[in-house]
Amino acid sequence: MQKVGILGGGQLGRMLLQAAANYPVETHVLENDDNCPAAHLCRHFIKGDIRDFDTVYNFGKNLNAITIEIENVNVEALEKLEQEGVQVFPKPSVLRTIKNKVLQKQYYHEHGIPTAEFTILQSNQEIFDWAHLLPGVQKLATGGYDGKGVQIIEDLSSSHFGFDEHSVLEKKIKIKKEVALMIAVGQDGKTALYPPVEMLFNKDLNLLDFQICPADIGKEVWWKAEAISLSVVRNFNSPGLFAVELFVDENNEVFVNETAPRVHNSGHHTIEAHYSSQFDMLWRIILGYPLGNTKYILPSAIINLIGSDNHSGEPYYNGLEEVLSIDNAFLHLYGKQQTKPGRKMGHVTVLSSERADLIYKANKIKQALTVITKE
Amino acid sequence: MQKVGILGGGQLGRMLLQAAANYPVETHVLENDDNCPAAHLCRHFIKGDIRDFDTVYNFGKNLNAITIEIENVNVEALEKLEQEGVQVFPKPSVLRTIKNKVLQKQYYHEHGIPTAEFTILQSNQEIFDWAHLLPGVQKLATGGYDGKGVQIIEDLSSSHFGFDEHSVLEKKIKIKKEVALMIAVGQDGKTALYPPVEMLFNKDLNLLDFQICPADIGKEVWWKAEAISLSVVRNFNSPGLFAVELFVDENNEVFVNETAPRVHNSGHHTIEAHYSSQFDMLWRIILGYPLGNTKYILPSAIINLIGSDNHSGEPYYNGLEEVLSIDNAFLHLYGKQQTKPGRKMGHVTVLSSERADLIYKANKIKQALTVITKE
Repeated sequence: MQKVGILGGGQLGRMLLQAAANYPVETHVLENDDNCPAAHLCRHFIKGDIRDFDTVYNFGKNLNAITIEIENVNVEALEKLEQEGVQVFPKPSVLRTIKNKVLQKQYYHEHGIPTAEFTILQSNQEIFDWAHLLPGVQKLATGGYDGKGVQIIEDLSSSHFGFDEHSVLEKKIKIKKEVALMIAVGQDGKTALYPPVEMLFNKDLNLLDFQICPADIGKEVWWKAEAISLSVVRNFNSPGLFAVELFVDENNEVFVNETAPRVHNSGHHTIEAHYSSQFDMLWRIILGYPLGNTKYILPSAIINLIGSDNHSGEPYYNGLEEVLSIDNAFLHLYGKQQTKPGRKMGHVTVLSSERADLIYKANKIKQALTVITKE
Repeated sequence: MQKVGILGGGQLGRMLLQAAANYPVETHVLENDDNCPAAHLCRHFIKGDIRDFDTVYNFGKNLNAITIEIENVNVEALEKLEQEGVQVFPKPSVLRTIKNKVLQKQYYHEHGIPTAEFTILQSNQEIFDWAHLLPGVQKLATGGYDGKGVQIIEDLSSSHFGFDEHSVLEKKIKIKKEVALMIAVGQDGKTALYPPVEMLFNKDLNLLDFQICPADIGKEVWWKAEAISLSVVRNFNSPGLFAVELFVDENNEVFVNETAPRVHNSGHHTIEAHYSSQFDMLWRIILGYPLGNTKYILPSAIINLIGSDNHSGEPYYNGLEEVLSIDNAFLHLYGKQQTKPGRKMGHVTVLSSERADLIYKANKIKQALTVITKE
């Protein structure tokens, strides 16, 4: 039986382990927190820092394969493991490119993949030389995560708010739609594309409200999204599962925003809505089985459950009864011991053949269910 | 967070735990074998004998609730736990009735639930007094499991093959269809019925070949099956999940064969094919949430993976590649460390809107996949 390690023990690891139980695989998880969401669903849990060379190397050296559920891991250790014959999904070279927003942006540029016009900065003073990129988005090369390390620069008068560090400044695209596309690459190089999904935002709060699959985009945009996503992963030359985040502008041009070389929040609906879920698919890739079927059984929406403002502590899921009485809704709580404002605590997937019904139910769930703390 | 224990750590426990990860519940498993299918997917694994009073009592006394994945557990300990306020699903009184085939049969009789005509025997000599029940099926009152403890008595000349023990002798029904119906009973007494499923047998080998949902039975038989199943569970006065096995004879009369007061092999298709799976449903019942939606998303078939004859030892799943390349098939291996002839090692669910496609694929999977040992 293959021994496979996962770096990181969050909700993505948890859902990977739920899927692993269908396959002949011995699971190992490395994570600092021994009460993390994935700690009690694996065969072997090892407490340790995924960013530490020795810890990752020692964790991986007796495994057949290793994968990640977060990019912020020790890439050098993965490179050494790869040299010694441990299979790594995705390849460490991919992680190296993705982890650094400057290298990631250069990668798109070098391979002729459409992405927002950009430059590379070392200080916020340099913004004055790139006024034509404003309004723009400045992203730190490294260390950004979950919305941190990203800064909007509206015009030159606000340039002093910019990061005074190694970073990317890219022209802000006039976004008509935000789309994501999951794509699987097998060990034999075969690829399988999931249908694109569409993010629906609350424009006032700048929050991802919910996500719908398939995206409501015309054929031409769909094909562009597929072609660009394929181009992104083909040039990586690595097996694995990839989530390509795309912007569609008002002229129906499609641009890559970012790529995640792993299972991803935008693919959770695939658990119930698709024949092969993203988690099932990653096991197929790692274990060398044929790629799964990416088609959807029914259209779906995902509603993320986010820790409410002003609530930190043991979570209480307010409105659970109402959501569980919705006929076509599926609840996933991540088993986190503490809620914090903005923390991802779970998600709900809803299935329906009618887009209007999806939107109606998604809004209903969004309003019914909150993650708070009890007095 | 509720602490819930499961007695037994086989595949049913394993799949219960896969579903538990979506809910706020702390899972505990009691089982003698610490390499059992459920051992590494729970929060707390306790090694011990589920048939021993003290072991079960000590396991359960600090839990909020307890359930079973096999009937062969210590009922006295569950009764004591119930008296002390631990919720037991199903109630121990139900287990007491179901575990004993004589009491189970008497239960159907007392409540006017159609079942094959029968008598109760203490020895095989008594068969001569009940010649009109032959050809008949003799079942041991206790101790039978997975086809053991059941004996066909064709005629009086073969009565000496019968069990010389406390047992039931029932008239063999001329079976046209074998059907099973899963039914959920909430803590508030509300019920939800899954659509009946139909077993398709290989008549030569007397093996369950595969199972299809929904059953191909007329409306009248469907309604009878529902009415009988409701009657079976209503009289138990117990929350829980129940699988009612039914025979349909050549006159479209419907009879109860047996009832299992737990998640059941005949409900595995619900994982992918239904909105609320049988495992999801049992957690909803235990945690006091609204019952789930029993409707199917698509019709389905289950193919059981059974250990091949003449193969005992570390399992090798021959034909996995072929099955995993079927577009609408879902693999579930149970992680058993040893295969044995006849042992349930996994199952495959296949979904399709076309019954002919289901049968075609089920046969293909049946032929492709075998569980053997490697030299």
